[in-house]
Amino acid sequence: MNTIDGGVTTPKGFKATGTHCGIKKERLDLAMIYSERPAIAACAYTQNKMRAAPIELMIQRHSDKLQAFIINSGNANAITGPQGMKDAIAMSEMAAKALSLDPVHVGVASTGVIGRFLPMDKMVPGIESIAAQLGSGREYDHRANMAILTTDKTIKEAACQVTLKDGTVVTIAGMAKGSGMISPSMKTKHATTLSFVTSDAVLTKAPEWKWQECINKSFNMINVDGDQSTNDISVFMANGAAGGKPVDDNPEYWNGVLYVLQSLAKQVVLDGEGATKLIELKVTGAKNDREARTTGRWIISSSLVKTAIFGADPNFGRVLAALGNSGSEFDIDKLKLTIGSNGDEVVLFEGGVPQVKPCSETEVKARRLLSDHNISMHLELGVGNGQAEAWGCDLTYEYVKINAEYTT
Amino acid sequence: MNTIDGGVTTPKGFKATGTHCGIKKERLDLAMIYSERPAIAACAYTQNKMRAAPIELMIQRHSDKLQAFIINSGNANAITGPQGMKDAIAMSEMAAKALSLDPVHVGVASTGVIGRFLPMDKMVPGIESIAAQLGSGREYDHRANMAILTTDKTIKEAACQVTLKDGTVVTIAGMAKGSGMISPSMKTKHATTLSFVTSDAVLTKAPEWKWQECINKSFNMINVDGDQSTNDISVFMANGAAGGKPVDDNPEYWNGVLYVLQSLAKQVVLDGEGATKLIELKVTGAKNDREARTTGRWIISSSLVKTAIFGADPNFGRVLAALGNSGSEFDIDKLKLTIGSNGDEVVLFEGGVPQVKPCSETEVKARRLLSDHNISMHLELGVGNGQAEAWGCDLTYEYVKINAEYTT
Repeated sequence: MNTIDGGVTTPKGFKATGTHCGIKKERLDLAMIYSERPAIAACAYTQNKMRAAPIELMIQRHSDKLQAFIINSGNANAITGPQGMKDAIAMSEMAAKALSLDPVHVGVASTGVIGRFLPMDKMVPGIESIAAQLGSGREYDHRANMAILTTDKTIKEAACQVTLKDGTVVTIAGMAKGSGMISPSMKTKHATTLSFVTSDAVLTKAPEWKWQECINKSFNMINVDGDQSTNDISVFMANGAAGGKPVDDNPEYWNGVLYVLQSLAKQVVLDGEGATKLIELKVTGAKNDREARTTGRWIISSSLVKTAIFGADPNFGRVLAALGNSGSEFDIDKLKLTIGSNGDEVVLFEGGVPQVKPCSETEVKARRLLSDHNISMHLELGVGNGQAEAWGCDLTYEYVKINAEYTT
Repeated sequence: MNTIDGGVTTPKGFKATGTHCGIKKERLDLAMIYSERPAIAACAYTQNKMRAAPIELMIQRHSDKLQAFIINSGNANAITGPQGMKDAIAMSEMAAKALSLDPVHVGVASTGVIGRFLPMDKMVPGIESIAAQLGSGREYDHRANMAILTTDKTIKEAACQVTLKDGTVVTIAGMAKGSGMISPSMKTKHATTLSFVTSDAVLTKAPEWKWQECINKSFNMINVDGDQSTNDISVFMANGAAGGKPVDDNPEYWNGVLYVLQSLAKQVVLDGEGATKLIELKVTGAKNDREARTTGRWIISSSLVKTAIFGADPNFGRVLAALGNSGSEFDIDKLKLTIGSNGDEVVLFEGGVPQVKPCSETEVKARRLLSDHNISMHLELGVGNGQAEAWGCDLTYEYVKINAEYTT
């Protein structure tokens, strides 16, 4: 697997773009992705019962082939009743018409403020014109990326290439948005972070199980604020344009997909509302992988852990208290908590007792390590072979500001 | 039931006080409660698996009679290994010796920083002298109250009297502390908020079931930051000094107990770290009481709801998104969300659609109501008769400050 500089139009046969239709005042707010041939698809959706209209529509249709996606930002079309559902269907139908496709092959996603009707008067001309503006290349990737952002400060994209045994080079690329209301727990068929992964590999059927496995190890292991959105969706589209053998069961290929997803997920956390630090947590020695994942999610979701990291405070007690709340099994005598940054590390807890005394040299070092923007944490539970990785960010004044002032 | 001005020594036969032994720099840090006769007791403890040493000791002993309690603040004696357990036992044994009691009848609780050993050199003389300083009356209540605080800005106490049918007047009084790491989910026998309720009523046996029921409707329905502590404990002690008939099954008596607990729980939330507003949420129409409680806890725990309230933003979408995450059943067409303050209210969502348009008169009114310090919220789910009340606070800059700067 080689990582490359690329975006959603880097895999063969994909086009995309972004435009401004008027939902937002000035910024781009409407994106389209298009594949020249039908693509095998898999989607993962939010498990929030208060699902947005576009999510509801996608679940009802359950298409295992998609050829285009229409996405708006600035308005989530969530909790908008029957009118919201009509609008989501209209988005899909208008995009299908402009592209001469069956609406069932055109996906819809929305992100933004909840509880407001979409301004269809602005969207109709927007959707009609965007289809004519599609193109391939980094400029088009960039426009599509920009058009799906809300409170995000930066675009998120990742891409890689895998060379199959027959010599075929397949490309996997993705874009994502997400900054707040980030605590995804997406399930295929029934995941407001949006993410779109395109690929030109050949697949023979919708890879729902593989996609779920990749989502479980990426987007489902990140947390900004503990609030799972009404609009989360993660989309995979593979159009086969690169040719070569099918990759359904090719582990190297799925490692590539996982790389793209994990890269996007980390970029979302790093751009989490108000975030100044990325926390990369590795949990090992759990009873099983499921408990490792649960523990990881509890720790990166704890407000007290997040504020401690913001304050560069080696407060291992808050980490272990969060572990205690996760309900996962651990052996206090074999428990080991290590924090680090820049390749250096400090053990905070081991052998049943704290390893850092107040005002000691070790504590000073721990504070220095925690002052970095990229914090690694390793928690060994000492009861089994289960492991997981989770990614979170700090909780800062800026988070409160953004969310107290971001208005309905 | 009559509410009265009173504290833990108002019920007959109780004494208490607080002193400074040196865990904290200047403030009181050691409290004692004492009953002149053995009291029937019930305790509820944190369900966090990372239990502090004093909690572990109390669970092991499982005493249904207590005659005294020794409590320190400034150090949680949590995650302190075998040494922590030794220290907790020593606290209980020293207090028992000073009071000429069996250690099994002397409860122990700690609150403060996690992961540091208790400074026993300071605590030994403290415990030896505090027993000689016990007394009754508001001054002694106040000293005990002060000595259990950590980041709390105010003391929390409540009291009431119930006149039994035979004319006996029994008194119920309580004190509590708690400001951060507040998301209790206490269970009797296996519940860092500390609370102590004293009463002079006669009971024939430990009221564990009744106590659990009261805790479920009070402390288990509050949330400051979602982090359940390692040290939560709620203690009930009834010494029978008022005489009269046993109150084991007297609903009026248990209403009095519930009043004291709910009052204390609300005071804890109102003094939540950085809090400027109290949110009183009523959930009705749930499938059952359990789902109503779950919904209530999810909503008051949502960072996005809490920041919206801080910003006086009538963002019903965040409330409904939190409902969706709770997993509870609801009927979107029968769902109704009302917010209010000072006896006035506004419907934010009803009949499947938002009731507040941007920049409308209603929105201006909603913002005005949300600017108050005491916010009420009512959510009708429309599927059954289950109901619950929950209490939360807003998430503010000050919360971040306190927790980024509160040091290990």
